[in-house]
Amino acid sequence: MLEQLKKEVYEANMQLPQYGLVTFTWGNVSGIDRKAGLFVIKPSGVAYERLTPEDMVVVDLKGNRVEGKYNPSSDTATHVVLYNRFSDIGGIVHTHSTWATSWAQAGRDIPCYGTTHADYIYGGVPCVRNLTKEEIDAGYEYHTGLVICDEFARLDRDYTSVPAVLCKNHGPFTWGKDAFDAVHNGVVLEEVAKMAARCEMLNPQVKPAPQELQDKHYFRKHGENATYGQSIIL
Amino acid sequence: MLEQLKKEVYEANMQLPQYGLVTFTWGNVSGIDRKAGLFVIKPSGVAYERLTPEDMVVVDLKGNRVEGKYNPSSDTATHVVLYNRFSDIGGIVHTHSTWATSWAQAGRDIPCYGTTHADYIYGGVPCVRNLTKEEIDAGYEYHTGLVICDEFARLDRDYTSVPAVLCKNHGPFTWGKDAFDAVHNGVVLEEVAKMAARCEMLNPQVKPAPQELQDKHYFRKHGENATYGQSIIL
Amino acid sequence: MLEQLKKEVYEANMQLPQYGLVTFTWGNVSGIDRKAGLFVIKPSGVAYERLTPEDMVVVDLKGNRVEGKYNPSSDTATHVVLYNRFSDIGGIVHTHSTWATSWAQAGRDIPCYGTTHADYIYGGVPCVRNLTKEEIDAGYEYHTGLVICDEFARLDRDYTSVPAVLCKNHGPFTWGKDAFDAVHNGVVLEEVAKMAARCEMLNPQVKPAPQELQDKHYFRKHGENATYGQSIIL
Amino acid sequence: MLEQLKKEVYEANMQLPQYGLVTFTWGNVSGIDRKAGLFVIKPSGVAYERLTPEDMVVVDLKGNRVEGKYNPSSDTATHVVLYNRFSDIGGIVHTHSTWATSWAQAGRDIPCYGTTHADYIYGGVPCVRNLTKEEIDAGYEYHTGLVICDEFARLDRDYTSVPAVLCKNHGPFTWGKDAFDAVHNGVVLEEVAKMAARCEMLNPQVKPAPQELQDKHYFRKHGENATYGQSIIL
Repeated sequence: MLEQLKKEVYEANMQLPQYGLVTFTWGNVSGIDRKAGLFVIKPSGVAYERLTPEDMVVVDLKGNRVEGKYNPSSDTATHVVLYNRFSDIGGIVHTHSTWATSWAQAGRDIPCYGTTHADYIYGGVPCVRNLTKEEIDAGYEYHTGLVICDEFARLDRDYTSVPAVLCKNHGPFTWGKDAFDAVHNGVVLEEVAKMAARCEMLNPQVKPAPQELQDKHYFRKHGENATYGQSIIL
Repeated sequence: MLEQLKKEVYEANMQLPQYGLVTFTWGNVSGIDRKAGLFVIKPSGVAYERLTPEDMVVVDLKGNRVEGKYNPSSDTATHVVLYNRFSDIGGIVHTHSTWATSWAQAGRDIPCYGTTHADYIYGGVPCVRNLTKEEIDAGYEYHTGLVICDEFARLDRDYTSVPAVLCKNHGPFTWGKDAFDAVHNGVVLEEVAKMAARCEMLNPQVKPAPQELQDKHYFRKHGENATYGQSIIL
Repeated sequence: MLEQLKKEVYEANMQLPQYGLVTFTWGNVSGIDRKAGLFVIKPSGVAYERLTPEDMVVVDLKGNRVEGKYNPSSDTATHVVLYNRFSDIGGIVHTHSTWATSWAQAGRDIPCYGTTHADYIYGGVPCVRNLTKEEIDAGYEYHTGLVICDEFARLDRDYTSVPAVLCKNHGPFTWGKDAFDAVHNGVVLEEVAKMAARCEMLNPQVKPAPQELQDKHYFRKHGENATYGQSIIL
Repeated sequence: MLEQLKKEVYEANMQLPQYGLVTFTWGNVSGIDRKAGLFVIKPSGVAYERLTPEDMVVVDLKGNRVEGKYNPSSDTATHVVLYNRFSDIGGIVHTHSTWATSWAQAGRDIPCYGTTHADYIYGGVPCVRNLTKEEIDAGYEYHTGLVICDEFARLDRDYTSVPAVLCKNHGPFTWGKDAFDAVHNGVVLEEVAKMAARCEMLNPQVKPAPQELQDKHYFRKHGENATYGQSIIL
């Protein structure tokens, strides 16, 4: 079942080592078929070099494995929550990519210091709070998903214009319209995290980019008036 | 038309990923035929891995697309201004290369700390101001070009000896005698930006290199008395 | 003798340059056959590009060379001590990998700032003290092993849950259930060292990850209740 | 003439881009035939990708080109001085490798923070002073060599145990028993420079490694009592 989606999710998973986002098995990609109400995800702990499309696991939106010989990623419950709460996303990525994880470990949001960031992410990338001991004990991966979604609601951030989050002392999740787009946003996040860190090193008093510049770049690529890729010369 | 120039500009564009200056489509190269009054530029948002020489777009010095099935780079209007105002340049590069962009995000000029810098760029690399909201609304890419050229005039900097600029909260532009030379200067700028950042980390009180050393290195490679490549042994 | 083990230790040694953990010959891997009471180790100063499985040296637990045309690694006496004192380990790695060595040179333990660390190492990575002049003179490599083991005892750290150590002003040793596992832990240590350094750069006041989060991640992958790779969806 | 030496110097030059020590043509290697009193050096400004053994230039110890269709490296006069004053060296390397150059730009000696450094270089790597305007005008490359050698004499440093130097605001020179050994030391210097910078970032109050540890490592690999590569197990 879902053979085409399995192939896509497999290929999106294989992009993680290609883009240098993962060491060993420290990452996973999923993609969803919204009509079927099923998503496809990497199996847990299987090395990328021996992964095949057939190894992908099919899971429903309650977190039940529907098909697949392997157990799904240990982070599957987080994906389940994100798909349920962020109803328009089509793919999710989790990695321990080094710069984004360094910000997560530092417990800091990534401010929007420039247009590279603003081209993809509207405003800072939030770093959400640690889980309580009670939340960890009651289902760590499930509550990780809840904390992400609750913090987006509390902060009034829109998941469609902010396709990335940092989990404190852990690492990043990104999402997108499909599995490939989620990987794309994972690469963007890592670049943005790297340049923001270096930018602060060069100017500890640096402020976020002016709002009008952030708006120009974000809306040049997103929404009804986007011109990027189809821009008209002035 | 301009088949040879299209081929050159295509190849110069392909050097950006080869030199590690771009992620995804975050960069563009153009090259001009001064006699024809036309320049050739990368199409907007087309991935490097599927780019061909035929995809290049021909644009005139008013910014009109003269030939090409794709829309030109979204930064085309900036190239138009630079070619008009910097009358001797033959090629332009824009990237979001990580170290140069970090300086741009930090809003700082790159001081000349050593001979690597002085071999190519005479004095610091200026970081020009943010555009006002009015400038952004009136034509963001066009005004980006105007701000670069106006700042060079205001600072009395010579674009032939300073083939690079940083746009605040955005990233670098470099130029040169042709498209390849502009890419060459883009690589130089990234190296110089990296070493200057690390140099400040090692010595926060560091001063620019002595003027006589900058002069020696710049004029060893440039101008009438250049000896590099043809040097005579003492 | 021990042909299969020689092949494994050879392959584990070859992983060091593949994972970017060594420059030139700055590293060595060994693996032990506990029943035979013999271990296999890289010869001293032989370049990786011309290493073969037959070049591996067989050594007993008193440090005597039992087989092999080359002298064993100059660090062999350290391996001897570790195998004798850490009775459950099956493989040992020493490198000068750059981030771990930078922490060792700084003379600092690596705090556990996140789940990447906690997935493999329970608590901080200890940086053990310098040897005294007397210890150096009485047998540098042998006393290096003693200091590691004595410090683990003094600090009440368990070598099975802390498979890594930094030797002050020198570099890291890691170990594992076999030679490959020891290399795996060497890669983990380098990643963890890199992210911890960048994390402190981003937040100089950063604290270690909450204990309950460290516990969750460590015991998700280790011990009787491990679920990673075989996790059950919530 | 000197065909074997030309081949070696060519190959040593080609190692510079292989080890990531140069961008474009920013580096040169030479090797000397002491009996003939002639050395072989890279031609000036020729790209590595089109370099051949036949392009190498033969120069005498007064700096006269003896053979070769190209002009020799613009740094040839520096090599001439070093070969004359450092009478036991067989090869010289100059690069703008990024970490070593960052220390040179910072105007700082690289302290010996660990055994990686002590394995090859006895004590800190000196950063020698800027040339005066008079020295620059009277022969920049020649005086660069004089300043290096005079500073080694003034500081009572031994060029055989300190095979590396930083020229302030410029970059490193390394040397060795032949061209390959000089490149080897160039790689060592870059690694050592990188780890020393990161070490200071992690511990701004860090002190050099204890003298007895530096002695142990340096003399384990150098001099009459060296055991590395031929060590005897304790």
